[in-house]
Amino acid sequence: MTDAARDLISKAMVDAGDPVEFAAYAPSNIALSKYWGKRDRSRNLPLNSSLSISLAEWGSHTEVAPSESGIDQVSLNGEVLDMGTAFASKALKFADLFRAGRAQPLKITTRNTIPTAAGLASSASGFAALTRALCGSFSLSLSEAEMSLIARLGSGSATRSIWHGFVRWDKGRAEDGSDSFATPLDVTWPDFRIAIIPVDVGPKSHSSRDGMNHTVDTSPLFAAWPDQAEADCDFIEAMVREQNFTALGQRAEANALAMHATMQAARPAITYLTQDSWAILERLWAARKNGLEAYATMDAGANVKLIFEAQSQDDVTTLFPEAQVIVPFAG
Amino acid sequence: MTDAARDLISKAMVDAGDPVEFAAYAPSNIALSKYWGKRDRSRNLPLNSSLSISLAEWGSHTEVAPSESGIDQVSLNGEVLDMGTAFASKALKFADLFRAGRAQPLKITTRNTIPTAAGLASSASGFAALTRALCGSFSLSLSEAEMSLIARLGSGSATRSIWHGFVRWDKGRAEDGSDSFATPLDVTWPDFRIAIIPVDVGPKSHSSRDGMNHTVDTSPLFAAWPDQAEADCDFIEAMVREQNFTALGQRAEANALAMHATMQAARPAITYLTQDSWAILERLWAARKNGLEAYATMDAGANVKLIFEAQSQDDVTTLFPEAQVIVPFAG
Repeated sequence: MTDAARDLISKAMVDAGDPVEFAAYAPSNIALSKYWGKRDRSRNLPLNSSLSISLAEWGSHTEVAPSESGIDQVSLNGEVLDMGTAFASKALKFADLFRAGRAQPLKITTRNTIPTAAGLASSASGFAALTRALCGSFSLSLSEAEMSLIARLGSGSATRSIWHGFVRWDKGRAEDGSDSFATPLDVTWPDFRIAIIPVDVGPKSHSSRDGMNHTVDTSPLFAAWPDQAEADCDFIEAMVREQNFTALGQRAEANALAMHATMQAARPAITYLTQDSWAILERLWAARKNGLEAYATMDAGANVKLIFEAQSQDDVTTLFPEAQVIVPFAG
Repeated sequence: MTDAARDLISKAMVDAGDPVEFAAYAPSNIALSKYWGKRDRSRNLPLNSSLSISLAEWGSHTEVAPSESGIDQVSLNGEVLDMGTAFASKALKFADLFRAGRAQPLKITTRNTIPTAAGLASSASGFAALTRALCGSFSLSLSEAEMSLIARLGSGSATRSIWHGFVRWDKGRAEDGSDSFATPLDVTWPDFRIAIIPVDVGPKSHSSRDGMNHTVDTSPLFAAWPDQAEADCDFIEAMVREQNFTALGQRAEANALAMHATMQAARPAITYLTQDSWAILERLWAARKNGLEAYATMDAGANVKLIFEAQSQDDVTTLFPEAQVIVPFAG
């Protein structure tokens, strides 16, 4: 079966020159309406659309250059990696989509600016930055939408990290994935804020990929998720466009809790949220009863992320002194 | 529309004499396969069958007698209640199903033997004992299955508290509720154990009735629950009959987590489980990795209940010194 992303790369590479040094950046992102469940596992084609906010200067700087030593070299955060590490092998496997067997040894250098304590996955920004850097290094004439489509082969959430701000990844319907890529929303919301409340920086119990597939395969409650998630995504997009914070926040929190509910019902259960995550949620809900306008969202890990507006920032950081605040529209 | 339970009472009361003093007992019960969601809210007709284990000497002693003062009197745990209290008004409303307007003032005396710290609802044992006591007081010739049907009008889970041991409440299909009552399983399992791990004896955030209805009304994930719960109930019944503890425990825990998942996905979410409940679950799961054979089940409250066999009792009480252990087949 044809694959739209691989086809795009192959066609563009016909006219490509030798790789040159090229540096790119991509922000991490947090989904307000979650991606959870694939209709095609090899292409990372999702069962539902999703919508995220990018994390501005928290992301991945990646440089691709010809390797003067004649052999591939991958480094991460200043350290040259052994080729057997997961990061190096994934990065080179992704680069191979472009090289397609050509003898073009590469030096791939990545530096993540996401604070370690934030415990955020870097695969979204990592594959988005690597896509941008590879396209630049081979001087390919690809649009950002096309780069989003290609980044999907690395990680589903990387589709959204091609852009800053609010980004929607439409699930698409085509079997070859040609219509499954992200596009940015033309909305600037300077007062929008995100805070990461770190809970646990230890290794996850399950990768998000495994957790997602196990949920789809075994959770009796999953059947209702794709339609509800699609409706949530449409509603949240509309609320972003209206800048209706309360409606957006309520729905984003409900969407995240529903996603975790699908996992909790998996057999055996997957519980990324720990007692410490629930303690943060209880503290948030108690404060919300007293007027705080902040809502929670949680991904495949124990951390809790809050969304709120600028006027609530002091209250949020008083309630959660450990909060790390991000201003997505600072620029 | 006719109601089978009310019809049973009316027909039996035709030949009833004046009330006499009659004392009855009914045990509380814990569902291993949960009742969650009604297809008929006025009759407490469930969307799915359920299966429970009764709690032996933890339950309700209820006496019904003619009131010599000529006016109704309700007392609970030694205290005469104001007629405006929820307990008194519910008990008298239930007695009115029998009196049907006749001038038969009653004295209803209830004593619960469930430790307060266990935080268990007493509506199941309370309505089952009240049903038995009213039937006895009016000298009605009703079978226990018929009493189970009648107890349902007070509380769904009271259907199961008519019996000791393992009890299955078949959901039935008839609109009038004529086939929706419980029956005992002919299984004796002397090594079966239950432990209550008390978390919070404060008032619940929502009654189980409200929580159930809100979940049915608003949870996008609820749609898949009734079929899964029915399959779980059948499987758990089979495992009780086989005395296959591991398969029973795994399925019971999965069933409880799925029920809580339907609530967590309700909009807004209902979370009976608190950070302390999750802490207990995490402690249990860690111990299970090290070989402990015990499984958790949770109802519309923060407490966690464990099921295990006699040979694990020392390990359970070492891990959870606050555990209150029940021996359901002690007699």
